[in-house]
Formats: sequence, structure tokens, C-alpha cells
Amino acid sequence: MKTFTDCLPCFLRQAIQAARLSGAGEEGQRKIADAAEEFLKTVKLSDSPPMISRNMHVIIRKMLDDPDPYRKVKDKYNRLAMSMYPFLKEKVRNSRDPLLTAVRTAIAGNVIDFGSQLEFELDSDVNDVLTKEFAVFDYEALKESLAAERDILYLGDNTGETVFDRVLIEEIIGRFGSRIKYAVKEGPIINDATREDAVFAGLDKVAEIVSTGCNSPGIVLEYCSGEFLELYKNSRLIISKGQGNFETLNAEKRPIYFLFKIKCDVVAAFTGLKNGSILIKKN
Amino acid sequence: MKTFTDCLPCFLRQAIQAARLSGAGEEGQRKIADAAEEFLKTVKLSDSPPMISRNMHVIIRKMLDDPDPYRKVKDKYNRLAMSMYPFLKEKVRNSRDPLLTAVRTAIAGNVIDFGSQLEFELDSDVNDVLTKEFAVFDYEALKESLAAERDILYLGDNTGETVFDRVLIEEIIGRFGSRIKYAVKEGPIINDATREDAVFAGLDKVAEIVSTGCNSPGIVLEYCSGEFLELYKNSRLIISKGQGNFETLNAEKRPIYFLFKIKCDVVAAFTGLKNGSILIKKN
Repeated sequence: MKTFTDCLPCFLRQAIQAARLSGAGEEGQRKIADAAEEFLKTVKLSDSPPMISRNMHVIIRKMLDDPDPYRKVKDKYNRLAMSMYPFLKEKVRNSRDPLLTAVRTAIAGNVIDFGSQLEFELDSDVNDVLTKEFAVFDYEALKESLAAERDILYLGDNTGETVFDRVLIEEIIGRFGSRIKYAVKEGPIINDATREDAVFAGLDKVAEIVSTGCNSPGIVLEYCSGEFLELYKNSRLIISKGQGNFETLNAEKRPIYFLFKIKCDVVAAFTGLKNGSILIKKN
Repeated sequence: MKTFTDCLPCFLRQAIQAARLSGAGEEGQRKIADAAEEFLKTVKLSDSPPMISRNMHVIIRKMLDDPDPYRKVKDKYNRLAMSMYPFLKEKVRNSRDPLLTAVRTAIAGNVIDFGSQLEFELDSDVNDVLTKEFAVFDYEALKESLAAERDILYLGDNTGETVFDRVLIEEIIGRFGSRIKYAVKEGPIINDATREDAVFAGLDKVAEIVSTGCNSPGIVLEYCSGEFLELYKNSRLIISKGQGNFETLNAEKRPIYFLFKIKCDVVAAFTGLKNGSILIKKN
């Protein structure tokens, strides 16, 4: 997906947020904002929002001299998400369709996204996603693909969301005996999950953790490692979590199922769906 | 109120919105965005948000070669608001405390604000304000002041909101026989009401319409005419509508009652109240 002019204020908001989370006061935040304003004049709208976001954060982290401004909040939500793990497993176990509830759970974990919004009520947002209607519901196709393909490339998204992904991955393995590779970011970018976050969520116990080889939100193929691109090209079933991955892979001709919640008006307009919609979307 | 770093993305959003409303395509919107980004690097956070917004829009209007980008939407909401006038009058007439309902009505009209948000459900937003609890409720003091002071300076805010102000003004005149001067902007700025908008709402039939002498949102005293400043300084009872007027006059030592709904997280944090709160706040 290309970038739209309405994304520009959102990039600037993100820059100021990163500065604040890094501990910068008003003056420091202003310095970062001015740098972001300068940067935004140079971006190509034909690039995807995650690509632009990544390049902006490279500049910001250098200016802040902070390799990971979101570390503290990531740790906070890692712990919060882990504390919900038993509850989420129970929800799945007690539901009429455990796989569907696990899918809903994985999408619910996607509400943990500081890129779109820092503040949210985790439990209420999760319950909202666990009960609301799907705007796109390619669930039957997903089940058929899961039954047909043993090897799955699972594209992770945010820190904390990793715990929710684990619930879905455990359900998939239990039901289909799948072998799963879970892709994380090579380095910190906003609150995206890196290897240490995936390990914190216990994903290394149920999946092979692989790196995209790059530190952009979403999956910016131009920035990924050759090793990851090989894996991506040869995967016959890909589960993609989150809006960022959709923004970068929506035009791809690969067997991808996008599981995510629409979090901004730009993607809502792009898909023709309401902001807040939840999707199981087959490519 | 000073400007906060979190206001910067909002200014940029406003700039792009103005370009779109003026009919600019993506390229045109981008040009305006880049100019706004350049401008934002120069602003002083010690200035109030309306002052900065005004100066930005001066640049934007020149670039767009459009003296009034919001004209079409202002006309639309003028008509929409006028169509609600009979309903609003009925609500007030049938209520237990008509003056309070009229005050609520005037605040409800304040939901019409393209500065903070372009899209809103007028009827549902209005009903929300007509029923919700006040976060600050200096209503008794307001009634005493209305009984004591016959001459009132009423600081208008947005187009369409003017119709809702008329309902309150008519209620005040009917109950206290007040003489009211209704202040509008000298020239177009975002969707703020100018003389023609006040006349469209029929305010000239119940009040004397005066100009602030400037074209900024809120009341930026540095930009107002000497004539208006005289009137302002000599007024012993001032009713100020909307968040913009609060942002520019909150520190003033004048007999002002602020009637507004908090529309952004910055003002929410500044006042220590929730975003969406409604206030009758005595200075």
C-alpha cells in the first residue's frame, strides 16, 4: 500500500511519541519533531507507510542516542500480555470453535500497537475483538490451507501480541501438527517484536523463530535478508499478523492470510471497510 | 494556553484537510503539507495553538489561492444547523430548566468543529451533550451574573454553532432582558463564524454582531482591533464559546464564562479533565 497525505501527521505524531518515550522533555521532543518535519518533506508517497516509518525512526533513534525508545513500554506490555496467557488459553479451551477463538485471540493481541495508539484498555479491547463480527471472513479457506500445508510462515507483529500469537500457534499445532516459523524483526522498531520478545512469550518452545533481517515495521521486502526472502518465496502458507504487514504485503501474489484489525482511517478508506474492522483476509 | 509538541501533528493534519477541502489532489495536498512542515519548524510553542493555526492558514490560503477553503462545508453545516433550530427550541421549551438546556444546546453546537474533527454525527453528538454530566458546572454563578449584568459580550466560535448560540441567546434575552454583542471573526479561518454566518443563523435579529477585527481561531488579543479590545476590556460579563476561545483566554483576568466541550487530549491534559468533557467554567 502506498502512503497517503493523511499518513504524514501520523508519522510526526509517532516521532514525538518516540522522543517522549525515550525520556526527552519538551525541547528534546521539539528537536525530534523538527527533524521529522524536515524528513517528511523528502519522502515518496509511493513508498509504503512502514518503509517511511522505518527510515524516520532510524534518524530519530540516532538523534535520541537511544537504540530502542519503546523498550520500557514493550517490557510493560510483554508482562501484561503474559499475565493474560492462562485466561486466553481458557477462553479458547471453553469455546465452541477453539480454532476460531484462537484466531480472534491473535487478532485481539494486535490491539497492542503503539504505532497507531499508545493508550488502550487491553482487556476491553480484547473482549471487543473476541466478540465482534468479521468484516472479511476467509475462515473456511484458512482451515483448508492449514489442513493442506504442514509448514507455515507466521509473520509476527507487535511485542505482547506475541503472547496472543502463541495461543493461536499452539491451537494450530494441536489440531494440524503444523511446523511453524515465526518471523520477528532483526532490530527494534517502534514496538515490533524482536527475538527476545518472542522468547519472552515462549514462542521458541512452539515455533522456530526467524528474523526478517530488517528493522522496519511490516515486511518491507527491499530491506529483508536474502535468507528471509528465500523462506518467504518458498512458503506455501503464510499467516500475516497486523496492519503493518498488510500495508507492505497487500499487493503480493503469495498464499497469505492477513489477520488484523484496521487501526486507522487511511487503511479503512484503502480497504473500503470501517476503522476498527477485524479481518481474516485471503490474498 | 501555550502550544504543546502534540499540537504539531494536529496543525499538519489541519493543513492537509484545508487543502483537500479546497479541492487539491494528492500532489496539491503534499505541497501544502510540505509548506506546513516547513512552517512548523519556525513556530514558538509559547504562542497559543490558535495563533499558530491562524498564521499557518494565512500561508496555506495564499498557496491554495483560496481565501476560504472551508466555505462549502461551512455552508453545508449552516443549513444543517438551521434545520435543527425548531427541534432545539422545542427541546428547550419542554425542559425543566430551559436556561440550562439552552446552555447545553449552545455547548452541543460546539461539536461542529472542523479544526478538531471533520466527521461527526451531529444529532448523536448533540444528544450526548444534552444529557451528559458537566465536568465543571459554574451554572449558579452564571445565572447570578446574567441577572446582575444586562450587557453581555458573547464570543462566537464555529459556523453552524451560531444557530445553537442563537437558542441560548434568545433564552437569555427572554429571561433577563439582556443586550448582547455577538463577536465573529473579521475574515475566514477554518470553520469559524464570520458576519455572514451569524446573519445566516439569524443572530442579527437578536444581537448586535461585532467583529474581533482579526481572522484567527479563538481570540488572539494581539491580533484583535482596537475597537474590539475596548469592548472586551469594558465588558463586565463575557460568555466564551468553544475550546479555541478557551485556549487563547484561559489566563485572562476578565469576567468570562467558558462554555465548551474538550475536543483534544492536549486540552484534556492541560485542564486535568477527560477528553469529551463539557464545561461551564467561570474564570
